[in-house]
Amino acid sequence: MSSQHDKGRELAELHLGKAGLDSLDQFSPELGDYVIRHGFSDMYTNEALDQRARKIATLASLVTSGNQPQLGWHIRGALENNMLSVDEIREIIVQMTIYIGYPAAFNAMRTMNETLKSMETE
Amino acid sequence: MSSQHDKGRELAELHLGKAGLDSLDQFSPELGDYVIRHGFSDMYTNEALDQRARKIATLASLVTSGNQPQLGWHIRGALENNMLSVDEIREIIVQMTIYIGYPAAFNAMRTMNETLKSMETE
Amino acid sequence: MSSQHDKGRELAELHLGKAGLDSLDQFSPELGDYVIRHGFSDMYTNEALDQRARKIATLASLVTSGNQPQLGWHIRGALENNMLSVDEIREIIVQMTIYIGYPAAFNAMRTMNETLKSMETE
Amino acid sequence: MSSQHDKGRELAELHLGKAGLDSLDQFSPELGDYVIRHGFSDMYTNEALDQRARKIATLASLVTSGNQPQLGWHIRGALENNMLSVDEIREIIVQMTIYIGYPAAFNAMRTMNETLKSMETE
Amino acid sequence: MSSQHDKGRELAELHLGKAGLDSLDQFSPELGDYVIRHGFSDMYTNEALDQRARKIATLASLVTSGNQPQLGWHIRGALENNMLSVDEIREIIVQMTIYIGYPAAFNAMRTMNETLKSMETE
Amino acid sequence: MSSQHDKGRELAELHLGKAGLDSLDQFSPELGDYVIRHGFSDMYTNEALDQRARKIATLASLVTSGNQPQLGWHIRGALENNMLSVDEIREIIVQMTIYIGYPAAFNAMRTMNETLKSMETE
Repeated sequence: MSSQHDKGRELAELHLGKAGLDSLDQFSPELGDYVIRHGFSDMYTNEALDQRARKIATLASLVTSGNQPQLGWHIRGALENNMLSVDEIREIIVQMTIYIGYPAAFNAMRTMNETLKSMETE
Repeated sequence: MSSQHDKGRELAELHLGKAGLDSLDQFSPELGDYVIRHGFSDMYTNEALDQRARKIATLASLVTSGNQPQLGWHIRGALENNMLSVDEIREIIVQMTIYIGYPAAFNAMRTMNETLKSMETE
Repeated sequence: MSSQHDKGRELAELHLGKAGLDSLDQFSPELGDYVIRHGFSDMYTNEALDQRARKIATLASLVTSGNQPQLGWHIRGALENNMLSVDEIREIIVQMTIYIGYPAAFNAMRTMNETLKSMETE
Repeated sequence: MSSQHDKGRELAELHLGKAGLDSLDQFSPELGDYVIRHGFSDMYTNEALDQRARKIATLASLVTSGNQPQLGWHIRGALENNMLSVDEIREIIVQMTIYIGYPAAFNAMRTMNETLKSMETE
Repeated sequence: MSSQHDKGRELAELHLGKAGLDSLDQFSPELGDYVIRHGFSDMYTNEALDQRARKIATLASLVTSGNQPQLGWHIRGALENNMLSVDEIREIIVQMTIYIGYPAAFNAMRTMNETLKSMETE
Repeated sequence: MSSQHDKGRELAELHLGKAGLDSLDQFSPELGDYVIRHGFSDMYTNEALDQRARKIATLASLVTSGNQPQLGWHIRGALENNMLSVDEIREIIVQMTIYIGYPAAFNAMRTMNETLKSMETE
């Protein structure tokens, strides 16, 4: 159980980046604990799907639902941990216009631009 | 221009399956023409993102937005053209519970089950 | 008050068609009463916006939110009462792809096609 | 092709205002290029629907989907280019409460108020 | 752990009804297992919120998100287990018009009516 | 009629808090007037559902639709008027992860935290 949980925290850090995981812990310890136990330790450790595929699916879902703060965390984790390139993420956002239209894609592109800028200034 | 359009129809058939592309043409020729010209011929031919990644992103977006008919076409195209396995698609749907909750994931799993059944009975 | 309510029922019939208004009354008398009192009698009688503009706004909103049964009623009312032509409604649905993507527009086009077919067979 | 594109940029400026079009170009040249080529040059030039009707449909869709930045641009374009009056836009937002409820309408009214204020202070 | 899981299945049956729980098990054993482990066994056993309050929150959420199959199960569980009366559920749906508008409330009322009819004919 | 309206304003203040009601009046007098007449005076005075149940349903709906400003007002009204405790509201947000996923629940928890902080600093 404990090693499962360690594996879950590793995967959470892979996907959210170190800063993302820290802010999760601080922001809402209760939701943070649940999402690591239920999501990263339990579902994400199922090897039926590789972590790159999980990352693509997550980004597409967050662009679609318009949850910008979480999209920012997941973009950052993807770039810090070399899961996807900047060009690949931009192209996912561009493709989403077919499925959800331009306004939601523009909002996602703004989050992408802001995430890149905040990574440069650190 | 014409070879761009041919490439677009090829990609549309790759992603939607032959039956999906046919029903697109018949159902609304106008929307079908636009989505092939704007989507598959123009965006999908950009090689910054591979077609497997585009498929994963599309499925995740359609599960998230709850557009079941289109999800069914895209699942079918993925399976017919060996872009993703049944287990990989199921796992994408399971993972989506973290981002959009269980009801939308259940609806997607029903679409998955119905698509598999209709493929078997052909 | 009573003439306000009569005016509201007239506007409800203009927008929903006679069959739409009847089914509203039968389906959920309580919601039907509220929407006529609050919506058609109170808001729709404000002459700051003409009824054609109100119809366009309603169709665009229902295509966007994906509420197909209500979209069908409002399309039918528009056609029966010559508020918009078939081509104008199709073009509203096409334009929506820019703002909400193709899957939702396809679903709306199906509702449009089914409404036209059910009007022809009466 | 080129005159089609010029017509598209004209229509983009009509709908988004000059400032909106400029920020589109700067913010994401790639999405900006696609939306002008696919949306304004291709769809909006279809004369089956007049530009006032397209504007009403766009505002109703953006109020419904809750995409505030784009709603602000489209309100501004509408007012700068005399496509709709302030009272007509307010009444569209009020009417939307019937179809999407009060919270989303309140958010749209805030965007309307902020757009008016920023136009006054220029 | 095992008694936690038994308590979770009890709560799942309380909320979904016996038929709902059975169809959950059959329809997608994997999603069914996750939602009982993560939702009913883990979150719903937290006594900070009583089960009646949880039921009201669930119904309001499902009416808002428009997930009709799950709304039907949860209405049925509520009525079979005397958690809420028919009038209370109708009034929750009516109230939702303020927050999400009439079309989504009409769709929920149809689900309510169909659920009542299917309970009567058993 | 007038006493109905007074009762409506009382209920609006119960649910939104005094500051919430004031900002409603100032922000958009027209929408404010409609929501009090249609919502609080007409629907909320129906005694088929108690005000605590109405509050729970409203919070769950706003967490689900992601309308943060209105969620903040309704949380504040609930706490100022002792309709729900801090722990009960947090638990409603936690439970929502089952129905709408973690990102929307995180956004709601941020609104909860900000509302608590702004109440403390007054």
